[in-house]
Formats: sequence, structure tokens, C-alpha cells
Amino acid sequence: MGMADTRFDTRRRKLASELAAKRVDDMLVTHITHVRYLSGFTGSNAALLVSKDRSAAIATDGRYTTQIASEVPDIEATITRQLAKELLAPVVPGHRVGFEADYVSVAQLERMKAACPEGVELVPVSGVIEQIRLTKDNLELTRLAEAAELATQALAEMVEAGGVREGRSERDIAADLEFRMRMLGAERPSFDTIVASGPNSAMPHHSAGDRVLAKGDLVTIDFGMHRLGFNSDMTRTFAIGEPSATLREIYEVTLAAQLAGVKASTPGTALVDVDAACREVITDAGYGDYFVHSTGHGVGLDVHEAPSAAKTGEGVLREDMTLTIEPGIYLPGEGGVRIEDTLFITSGAPRIITSYPKELIVL
Amino acid sequence: MGMADTRFDTRRRKLASELAAKRVDDMLVTHITHVRYLSGFTGSNAALLVSKDRSAAIATDGRYTTQIASEVPDIEATITRQLAKELLAPVVPGHRVGFEADYVSVAQLERMKAACPEGVELVPVSGVIEQIRLTKDNLELTRLAEAAELATQALAEMVEAGGVREGRSERDIAADLEFRMRMLGAERPSFDTIVASGPNSAMPHHSAGDRVLAKGDLVTIDFGMHRLGFNSDMTRTFAIGEPSATLREIYEVTLAAQLAGVKASTPGTALVDVDAACREVITDAGYGDYFVHSTGHGVGLDVHEAPSAAKTGEGVLREDMTLTIEPGIYLPGEGGVRIEDTLFITSGAPRIITSYPKELIVL
Repeated sequence: MGMADTRFDTRRRKLASELAAKRVDDMLVTHITHVRYLSGFTGSNAALLVSKDRSAAIATDGRYTTQIASEVPDIEATITRQLAKELLAPVVPGHRVGFEADYVSVAQLERMKAACPEGVELVPVSGVIEQIRLTKDNLELTRLAEAAELATQALAEMVEAGGVREGRSERDIAADLEFRMRMLGAERPSFDTIVASGPNSAMPHHSAGDRVLAKGDLVTIDFGMHRLGFNSDMTRTFAIGEPSATLREIYEVTLAAQLAGVKASTPGTALVDVDAACREVITDAGYGDYFVHSTGHGVGLDVHEAPSAAKTGEGVLREDMTLTIEPGIYLPGEGGVRIEDTLFITSGAPRIITSYPKELIVL
Repeated sequence: MGMADTRFDTRRRKLASELAAKRVDDMLVTHITHVRYLSGFTGSNAALLVSKDRSAAIATDGRYTTQIASEVPDIEATITRQLAKELLAPVVPGHRVGFEADYVSVAQLERMKAACPEGVELVPVSGVIEQIRLTKDNLELTRLAEAAELATQALAEMVEAGGVREGRSERDIAADLEFRMRMLGAERPSFDTIVASGPNSAMPHHSAGDRVLAKGDLVTIDFGMHRLGFNSDMTRTFAIGEPSATLREIYEVTLAAQLAGVKASTPGTALVDVDAACREVITDAGYGDYFVHSTGHGVGLDVHEAPSAAKTGEGVLREDMTLTIEPGIYLPGEGGVRIEDTLFITSGAPRIITSYPKELIVL
């Protein structure tokens, strides 16, 4: 606090290089997650202007006067209620200023245009900051590993305490897990916690309802912790008493697929091939039609972000990317399984940051 | 479930009338909160087309085939991954189709334009659905009252159980309260729970950190419950042991201001006058410079929505609007007070749905 953090400057330099390559002179960053990524500012309202000459300016409102001075000591801050207008005012006529086309609404663009000095052109830019975010730096890797480890600890403690048991409702288990994550430092869950039991486990998007766990159920718990700006994401499926032969079979197939997906997650591998490695195991076992979603996604400032490991799409894994591997088999009316880890892609085998047993645990 | 709910049809008819008045033939609704408001669909991905002749079409993806049939029995649903394209395809050439300019990103509009049949014009529309949402119907009032009552119950039970006490951290209190809300039916908090103690209570935007409550502290707890699509919002300030004379004074002034704001909240009153009634009490007591925010806002599908009771702005209170009254006094370094209720505006005195004592409770 109070000391310039060169990490943010490094990120802005990467952005400045991209701008020069795109013939954009300045970039007006308004998506608050990106402002945080490029400056370190953690408040809820700010905008940042990064120029191709690597200079930067930031603006926020009066609530954050003290906070911005302490969190962003290396950029001059303007305190204003008209963030874009103040940042655009000193821009030199003739400059092309990029705005974030994926996040700026049509109405917001109209207001930006009205606030733009004469001779300055606003141009839509997409995906540039996302591209820089694709590979994580050391601080990001540390924060992501911490969030994943604390979330895993919350699950382990809940299971240890008998929190997943016959007679307890999905909702109570979700509340219990979220409370434990909160006590371990979560600011909030990364997404609505999924506790899907019995037939509900066959619905990949079921969240957590009033259903009470019963003998013979599979229970899928998919959860994450938002902490210090970063997210975690993992899934485990448990059995309440001995499951049917079919349910045990789909568990074993899903687990084999998950291990195959993890094994395939090395630098240089095409993302479609990661998906294929995982999917093939399930297809070969005859359950291909019941694996109804993609294999995985990146995790970072957003809980779902690039890259995407799916049947189609571009891209190759690189070192310091993150990726979930989360195959599932869903038998309507009967039950479902999903097993998900979050990985760091390293020069060798991937590092699993959601370290928790994957053999079927019968509770 | 499975039965057409005329409430949604009524809302769509209101929208259809507005469209006719605005010379827009159809409205493409993509903001998911608005899709839910106008159709009853609770999934995470859908779009709705409402036409000035009162007809409607809805689209979602394959995850929600069963759910949309059950939740929206009165509108034909298309299952697709290209929501806007499918809904726009049958639109008659020459039609002007409104899109939600406050929510559609510039990049999204480009994709909509590419998917738009020839001869159909996309026109930006702002604030029309928000205007309909301004006054609440019976289902909304019921859901909002339920959320507020359950959230209030969670606070009451926590205080009763000794949850707000010397030696406990802000974070633990927030986790405790969120757990109790979850067990009472919350899907999540409406916003990050604020527990601001001692000098932190002088910062209106402090959330909940590691600080441990100490004798002489004021502790401000500002929290809400998201349940069945709706939100609650209330604040109470407690004392840990007997507070200083100054802190007790600002408590009494804030309470008098809050009561004045509630009293002023009747149909026909200008929102600036509600703000003034509340603010005047604080200004007259010499603390005007320390009431640094607005008096209140509406609560509904969003926890902050129209109307706004502030120093400036348009508008008059009407029956069936909601409004928070939440004055505060913040003495930097020393401590702060905020007291907030959510009200329903009725033909007579407002109905307070966050019913909990407002005299200073010393714990």
C-alpha cells in the first residue's frame, strides 16, 4: 500500500504495445474488472486511459479519493463524477481512442461521444485486454491458488463434519459450504453454489433447492470462492449410501475422462484436442450423448473466461494459462456426475490447484 | 407452474402500449432481468420479442427446453443458440425494432445488425421497461415484503443470539448474517454485506473486514437478501457498550431525519422534497456536511433502481412505488450512523417492510 507495484505497469505496457500495433493512440478502459487489472484499484467506480506512449491517467469519484491515492500511487488521479469526459478532455485532436466494445452499452457510447473533444475519434476495440489476461502472472497465479485451496479446505471441512448426509437439504448444504468459505476469507461465492442431488444431479444447471438427500443419491457440488478479485471453481460428486451399478459406472467413466483431460492439458496442445481427449473416453463408453457441455474454461478475474476447451474453436494451450477440466454424464431422471478441477498449465504436467480426492466417496 | 400467469401478459400489454406511442413496432428484450419480468422465465439465457399488437415470442438454449415450457406456457418458445437472430427472422420488413440501449453492448449491437433481416431497422430504446417497473404489482409487493421480512428476521435472530458483540470481527458477523439469510431462503445476499465498526463506520462504502468490535464502537450493518428474483435492503447501527456523547448525538439526529423522511414519503410528494425533509433535520443540527449521499432509492428486481430521492432530479412519488429512506452522518476517524428502511408508498402513510427497532440498541 502506497508503494508503486510494477506489475500493473507491466500489464499497461503490454496493452500499450497492442494499441500501437492496432493503430489506436489511447484506450479508454471502463470495464471495472479491467481497470482493477491494469491499475490495482479495487473500488466500484473508475475509468483508466492508457496511451500508446505508455502514459496513463485514472479517474474516480469523491468516495474513493483516499483509496485511489493509496492503491494507485503511480498514476495521477482525477476526482470527478464524469469519468470518461475528464479522461478524454486532454486527448490530442487527431487521436484514435479505443473503447471496450464488449462492455460499453450503446447508450454509454452516445454519452462518450458527446463528451469527446472535437477531432478525437472513438473506435471499438474487442478482446485486447482479454488476450493479455490469457496468461497469468505470478500474483494472479498466487491469488488463484489461494482461492482454490481455501475453497477446497471449506469442502473438506464440511464433508469431515458430516455436512453431506442423508436427510439434509441441498439448500442447507450450499449455505453451510458458503458460510465456511466466507469464514476462510471469501468475499462471496464465485457463482450460486450448485448442490444437485438424486434426479437433480442429472440437470447440469440445477442450483440448490429444497430436496433432501436420500440413500442411493449421487450429489454434485459445484462451487467457488471470490477473494481479492479472483475466483475458484471445482466440482465433486459424492454418493449417499451405495449407488446403483449404473451410477457407479458413470462415475468411473467420468473420472477416467477427467484424468484423460488433465493429462492432455500441456502447452502446445490445441484446445479442441483437450476436449476430444476427455470426450473420447465418455463416447467410447457409450455415454457420448449424455456429456452435454464443454470440457472446460479459464478461471481468473472472471470465473468463466478464455480459453475454452470445447468441440470447436481456435487456440492452443500455453504455459501460465488456467483451465478447468469438468466432464459430466447426465442420465435424465436417474442421476448425474461431474468432476472438475482447475489447472495451471506449466511446462510439464499441469498443476491441479483444487486438490481433493476424486475416487467416489460414499457418505 | 404450467398455468398461464396473466400478470406477465399484463406487463407485456403495458410495454406494447408504450411501443405504439413511441412508433416502435417490436421490442427485442435481451436484459435477462427484463425477460424474467415480462415472461416469468427464471433461467440465465433468453430473449423476448414483444410486438405492438401484443403478440410475443421467446427464445432460449437447449439447457432450458423443459423449464421454459413450464414457466412460460403462454408464449411459443424457440430453442436456439442464436437468440436475437431467431426472434428477428420473422419480423416484417419496414418494421422498427427497439433494442435496450442501456444494456446492449456496442459489439452485441453489431451482431444484432448482422442478424437482422433486410428492411428491418433497429432503434435504441431507453427506460421504457424501467418506467413500467416503477410501480409494483401485487406479486412484486408480496415478494419484496417477504424478502424484507426474512432478512429482518435473520438480523433479529443474530442479535438475539449475541452475534453482534465485542471481540467478534466484522467479517464473522457478515458471514453469520449471510448464513442466516441463506437458511431462511436467500439465494444470495443482494450485495456484499456491510459491517462497519468503530472508525470504519465513518466510511459509507466500507464492506466487512478483519477489524474486531470494541467497547465504544458504533457498528453499521447494511444488508439485503436476494430471493425469487427480488431484493431487500435495510441498515441498522448498534452500539457496543455506551457510546460517546457525540456518537449518541449523531445517532439521535440521524433517527430524527429518518423519521422525517419516512413521514414525507406520500404519493404526490416530489422526490427532492423527500430528500429535503430528511436532509433538513441533519443540516439544522449542524451535521449537513457529514451526510454525504442521497436519501434513498427504489428496491425491486434490482437492489438499486428508480426512483431516486436526492438533492436534484425529477419525479414525484406514486402509490406502489418502493423507496428506501437511509440518512447517515459520518464523522471521519470517529464513527458513523446510518438507519435505513424500505417503504411501500401507499395512499396513506408508507408501509415499512423492514420492521425492526430504530432506537439505539446498546449491546
